[in-house]
Amino acid sequence: MSIHGGDVYRNHVDIDFSINVNPLGTPECVKEALHRAVEICGKYPDMEAERLGEAVSTFLGVPKEYLLFGNGASELFMAIVHGIKPKKVVIPVPSFYGYEYAAKAVDSEMIYYEMNQENNFCVTEDMNRILTEDVDLLFLANPNNPIGNLLDKEMIKKLLLHCRDKGIYVVVDECFIEFCGNQFSLLSETRKSEHLILVRAFTKIFSIPGVRLGYLVCKSKAVHTKIAGQLPEWNISCFAQEAGCICAKQAEFTLKTKNYIENERQFMEKRLIQLELRTFPSVSNFITVYSDKPLYDKLLKRGILIRDCSNFRGLGKGFYRIAVKSREENEILLKAIESL
Amino acid sequence: MSIHGGDVYRNHVDIDFSINVNPLGTPECVKEALHRAVEICGKYPDMEAERLGEAVSTFLGVPKEYLLFGNGASELFMAIVHGIKPKKVVIPVPSFYGYEYAAKAVDSEMIYYEMNQENNFCVTEDMNRILTEDVDLLFLANPNNPIGNLLDKEMIKKLLLHCRDKGIYVVVDECFIEFCGNQFSLLSETRKSEHLILVRAFTKIFSIPGVRLGYLVCKSKAVHTKIAGQLPEWNISCFAQEAGCICAKQAEFTLKTKNYIENERQFMEKRLIQLELRTFPSVSNFITVYSDKPLYDKLLKRGILIRDCSNFRGLGKGFYRIAVKSREENEILLKAIESL
Repeated sequence: MSIHGGDVYRNHVDIDFSINVNPLGTPECVKEALHRAVEICGKYPDMEAERLGEAVSTFLGVPKEYLLFGNGASELFMAIVHGIKPKKVVIPVPSFYGYEYAAKAVDSEMIYYEMNQENNFCVTEDMNRILTEDVDLLFLANPNNPIGNLLDKEMIKKLLLHCRDKGIYVVVDECFIEFCGNQFSLLSETRKSEHLILVRAFTKIFSIPGVRLGYLVCKSKAVHTKIAGQLPEWNISCFAQEAGCICAKQAEFTLKTKNYIENERQFMEKRLIQLELRTFPSVSNFITVYSDKPLYDKLLKRGILIRDCSNFRGLGKGFYRIAVKSREENEILLKAIESL
Repeated sequence: MSIHGGDVYRNHVDIDFSINVNPLGTPECVKEALHRAVEICGKYPDMEAERLGEAVSTFLGVPKEYLLFGNGASELFMAIVHGIKPKKVVIPVPSFYGYEYAAKAVDSEMIYYEMNQENNFCVTEDMNRILTEDVDLLFLANPNNPIGNLLDKEMIKKLLLHCRDKGIYVVVDECFIEFCGNQFSLLSETRKSEHLILVRAFTKIFSIPGVRLGYLVCKSKAVHTKIAGQLPEWNISCFAQEAGCICAKQAEFTLKTKNYIENERQFMEKRLIQLELRTFPSVSNFITVYSDKPLYDKLLKRGILIRDCSNFRGLGKGFYRIAVKSREENEILLKAIESL
């Protein structure tokens, strides 16, 4: 079993519920930009990603000096740890494996903050307890993956102050934020907190994981210099640059997606509960469930791939993550679960 | 002035002689593969790049376990230094800036091996002198950039033995090898030398710098593990994977290019000498010249961008690198130089 979802290359899969991209697909205008990029791929991509920087700066309403682009958020996680070289890293679990992968690359000591089931896997104020002065970096996800729950904003503001005092960098992964709504983002905090590094991507919301485009938002020039020096030259392909410029202007599509997901997620949650699965509160485009039936294997036999979460640190056997997809696909999944 | 060529984003450029991609352009079948990739970019790219690995393994005639792919050769240089963490690095100069950029990222001490003009900027056996036991890694380019000359194969075989005895990793950049001919490659040496890491790319020969696809060839499993752990997850986009599978099958196009370049380079060399520029022997798709006229500025005013090599360590004012392009473009350049 893969450490990530989406291995449709070594499984026979008709419908993939294991990765969490937008069920509305890639907007036509983004596809057109990608086709246009074929005609310019004989030129080196702009090393400074100037047009992209301007587009994303306008989209987010932050100065373009705050931005740094990566070949996917995954490249930024790596560059962050290579640049900051944290000796000790705090990672809440369960969460995305990529933080641990990055921390391993620089041999950081990892401290796991265990979120518990009784508490619906939330970060709570007691996290401060392990955020001591010897910690260099904290990874957080907003919303978290695989649960899909948001960080409490007031709690996080306090936590940011605590981390500032202790000299701890805070990396917040917001790769799924558009599915919940930008009002839940910590974007405005980047203006105040120099030690906050927000990582986002166009991957999920525009359903372009094959393109590779992520970005970080951070006010501190010193942090920028450290991280930029760890990124390979020409790291953003012409495909990512062309697509990104268009993605940054799709406010309407994003809103439409958010509304669609909200409605569809509620429908699925209700049905999953009726099917006697335990669900956990999500505001994102995926739902984590608990079941004592071997859902993964049984569904895969029917060509349906879901994410077996048993290899998520802090979860275990019986947890599965299911993407919210189109109504038609969701119905197929629900019927398949029902028939087991 | 940029540290690299190709900055057509911040200059007005009609013809770009500053970057060295294939003047025959991108093969239509590769462009078609890139267009096809648009339709699959909603899936995560294969993390194991299985199809690509098989295609390149067949193309090179090396086991696919020898291969590792990067988002351009530039990503591999970074991952190599992140993986090996060399304290001391030897870099021959003049050469590609990317080696120094990578070594800086891991704070390596850099020792420059100065190749001199009297010797046409060749690596000679006296390099052994500085390859002492405290050196961890040596960068070489075959052919070298900006001169375009090959490493002497017999000399390099001896040097590889010397480096093996001293525990020095040898990274050989062969990004331009296809323009000279694969018989000059050190590929066959990878079967014998576990400390040899060959880095190549599809960028130049297929004129796809915007796509980002490089690969390394190395026999040692231990080296693979070290380097792979420093590469971000999903680092090879679906565009690179689709294009790469097709590129690996274009032996005919590569041969046609080699013959074209040979002929066109000889034509240019002859004319440049007639124009009283000093040239240096190149077997690649670019020529470095020396002139005491301010060629860069004067040509740029006419919309022609060449590579001012004055910021190449080991060169200086008056050196310029010129790509071999189409006959029509080459004629325009030669006429412009003539008229200065």
